[in-house]
Amino acid sequence: MLAQVTLDSESSIPLYRQLADAVSRLIEQGSMRVGDRLPPTRELAGHLGLNRTTVSAAYAWLENEGLIRGHVGRGSFVAKAPESVQSARLDWDAILPRVELSGAASVPAEISFANSRPADDAFPMEQFRRLAKEVIDSPDAREILQLGSPLGYAPLRRYLLEQARSEGLANDFDDLIVTNGCQQGLDLLARLLASRGETVILEDPVYHGLLRVFERSGASIVSIPVTEHGADPEALEGAIARHRPRAVVLTPSFQNPTGASIPVSKRRRIVELVQRSGTILIENDIYGELRYHGESALALKRLDESGHTILLRSYSKVSFPGLRVGWVIAPRPVVAHLAELKQTSDLHSDQLSQAVLLRFAESGELARHLVRTRQDGKQRLAAARNACRTYLPAGSKYTTPEGGMNLWVELPGRLDSRDLLSKVLEQGVAFLPGHYFSVERGHSRCLRLSFGGLSPEEIQRGIRILGETARRELAAFAESEFEPAPALV
Amino acid sequence: MLAQVTLDSESSIPLYRQLADAVSRLIEQGSMRVGDRLPPTRELAGHLGLNRTTVSAAYAWLENEGLIRGHVGRGSFVAKAPESVQSARLDWDAILPRVELSGAASVPAEISFANSRPADDAFPMEQFRRLAKEVIDSPDAREILQLGSPLGYAPLRRYLLEQARSEGLANDFDDLIVTNGCQQGLDLLARLLASRGETVILEDPVYHGLLRVFERSGASIVSIPVTEHGADPEALEGAIARHRPRAVVLTPSFQNPTGASIPVSKRRRIVELVQRSGTILIENDIYGELRYHGESALALKRLDESGHTILLRSYSKVSFPGLRVGWVIAPRPVVAHLAELKQTSDLHSDQLSQAVLLRFAESGELARHLVRTRQDGKQRLAAARNACRTYLPAGSKYTTPEGGMNLWVELPGRLDSRDLLSKVLEQGVAFLPGHYFSVERGHSRCLRLSFGGLSPEEIQRGIRILGETARRELAAFAESEFEPAPALV
Repeated sequence: MLAQVTLDSESSIPLYRQLADAVSRLIEQGSMRVGDRLPPTRELAGHLGLNRTTVSAAYAWLENEGLIRGHVGRGSFVAKAPESVQSARLDWDAILPRVELSGAASVPAEISFANSRPADDAFPMEQFRRLAKEVIDSPDAREILQLGSPLGYAPLRRYLLEQARSEGLANDFDDLIVTNGCQQGLDLLARLLASRGETVILEDPVYHGLLRVFERSGASIVSIPVTEHGADPEALEGAIARHRPRAVVLTPSFQNPTGASIPVSKRRRIVELVQRSGTILIENDIYGELRYHGESALALKRLDESGHTILLRSYSKVSFPGLRVGWVIAPRPVVAHLAELKQTSDLHSDQLSQAVLLRFAESGELARHLVRTRQDGKQRLAAARNACRTYLPAGSKYTTPEGGMNLWVELPGRLDSRDLLSKVLEQGVAFLPGHYFSVERGHSRCLRLSFGGLSPEEIQRGIRILGETARRELAAFAESEFEPAPALV
Repeated sequence: MLAQVTLDSESSIPLYRQLADAVSRLIEQGSMRVGDRLPPTRELAGHLGLNRTTVSAAYAWLENEGLIRGHVGRGSFVAKAPESVQSARLDWDAILPRVELSGAASVPAEISFANSRPADDAFPMEQFRRLAKEVIDSPDAREILQLGSPLGYAPLRRYLLEQARSEGLANDFDDLIVTNGCQQGLDLLARLLASRGETVILEDPVYHGLLRVFERSGASIVSIPVTEHGADPEALEGAIARHRPRAVVLTPSFQNPTGASIPVSKRRRIVELVQRSGTILIENDIYGELRYHGESALALKRLDESGHTILLRSYSKVSFPGLRVGWVIAPRPVVAHLAELKQTSDLHSDQLSQAVLLRFAESGELARHLVRTRQDGKQRLAAARNACRTYLPAGSKYTTPEGGMNLWVELPGRLDSRDLLSKVLEQGVAFLPGHYFSVERGHSRCLRLSFGGLSPEEIQRGIRILGETARRELAAFAESEFEPAPALV
């Protein structure tokens, strides 16, 4: 149809522009549509009896206007209709409420206590590189690149299950499924067990991503407070009696955000409780291997022979978080359902990372890295505790974890940790305020300090800034209380 | 407490067995519990005035009974309570209905048409190995191993978005999120847009994993038939008018299972339809790059400037399915919500595979591999079509796709494809029967042949076996129809 365009060589409007206008009109009328290919310049020039440069100039003008787009070797295509004929834009904001990704975690700060993750300067890069190359060069590589199983890469699954059996963490009736980190384990479990309004007991405060998973699944959420010794069996007993929950989710070792751990005697009582009441116990054990002090505590799963407990573990916190490999150990019927759900969710977990992490574990490098991580962690923890003791205002409380990556601070007086955050951010320090971890209790005077990714020096400096700022704020409060208030009239 | 055990050296019962019984009783009474550590043999022998071998024999007996478990270097631990005191097993079968992973796909067969996946003997292993090592050796490796963004590995995201922009597949208002293959893209979209009973229109027959995602999300599912030219605009128009759906999900190129593609003129009508009606269009485009014949068709997303269309793509079908990397291109508010959901689901996609596939794409190796894949695919498709023409019984219908990995067969007469499957499985041939892809229409005489992973010879042999078996079955039916029926009285 472009070949039928008539141009006026006598007009004051240059020929290239007449041609461009004609194309524009054809698009406007709908005679040419988005995606239509324009004739090659040489061909159109021949048809219209024009110089090829005239056609090229017209196309350049149209491209500049955004109406067409040229692709090297493939020609030019209609890219856009003129404004007047563009279809009504779908109003997504009317369909979906505004959403923001959890904020503070991504605020850049010189010293950020906001992320519960390992320090990457301690990654054993040389070992990772060597072992990853072994996997890539191995004859298994072809199979690794092919479609896999929703249950996980078979050699990794076998390894993890044998290891769990030898540690008493898997019974004969248990099976194992690999997930994209613990987060996916939680998500699949929430969708499987709590998608119809079932009641679920969580700890309060609790890791926001855990709360979010169960909120989203449609569970009815109840919570019990986290004490210095983690979740308390008596509080749990009361909550179970009152709410008859489908499941309870606990992080018994170095809980996020508090760092608190449940002592063994209380663990036994918790297991007895869920057994007696027929409650499902979901044990989130991602920090358990990061113990720096005290005696290793038995996993709840280890104490439960009755199949009530589902154990979640992960390589993320003890090796490389960027490789998404966690796993769930649970009675076979649960794992069968999780596999079905996993297949619907994303077919299966990435196999390259599964194979690399298997090699990392089998070679003994993971165990060696864990020893180093524990040594480093011990120093970080000591730095954090010393700094809290030295710099936090009088009346502050803070947990004294024996491992993990997190410590929980409760400030004295009326200090809201969100206000404090805005003050310390100006000085290059970030943390997550307590309300971020709140289920029912607010925690407005609390904050989480994640020390896993920082050096002892950074930890010391960051907590000093935090403490000094908090003292100043408290002093300001104290002063304002003595200011004469205007009379109320 | 074991140190207080008294043994009778005069008894006819050997000392080791007396000791073992004593331990067993302590466990039974609850004085020793699962996970408790037994004293070292030397220490207990000293306390009880026994020979150390006696204690070792007792421990061996207990271990043999499964009551304790020894760990080299760590000692022996109580592993299990005697039957009498074991807590009631949780009855998972009462909580969860029995589930089975989709069966036929995992049936081992010499020639399996059951999986829609690429042939791994064509994987460019040398190139993969070289490029993966480059990534591993690069200074970016440390960042790749650290926690990432729910939106995806930034360099890959940038690359994909630029590529999409240059191909007219992303508008200014669009954004992109990396997912674990297309499957997760579908799952996140179903959870975002159709979790409250919203009506969604699907094609029928359709890929089972796509149907499952929307069933599980709680969508109310309606379907339109797939014709030889894919989903028909007129059927879609009727369904939209009747059901006022929230969304319609289409695979316009080489649809799974039929292999059918929607011609460009119909694509335009479909885009106009969704624009006019305000319906969200989800375009599942995982096979689009695998065209072996005919002219490349424009993506629906390309034809839609109004933000109604959400495009899903993936590297799985065109490179390595074991690396789980797909992506979604959609208006920003949609991507923001998907990121929030993704973070809750599994934090982010595996970064090693994202980085390796980026390198594979940037280096030009992906494009080279695609050229080879298309050449191979063309031969496979030709073999499948020839074999269908030669061997299928008269009256059979089959689609004639121009690309992709799948072909759809409709058998004549009363032949149920499930019965046929059981017959050909005995001869080492597998496929997925039509009911597996059914939304509302049964498709009992239909079957899907996935030829993407087989050699032309295997394809030819497999379809010959299929065709010959089908002919035999039909002949048996025909005979039985002439058998005298008993009089109805």
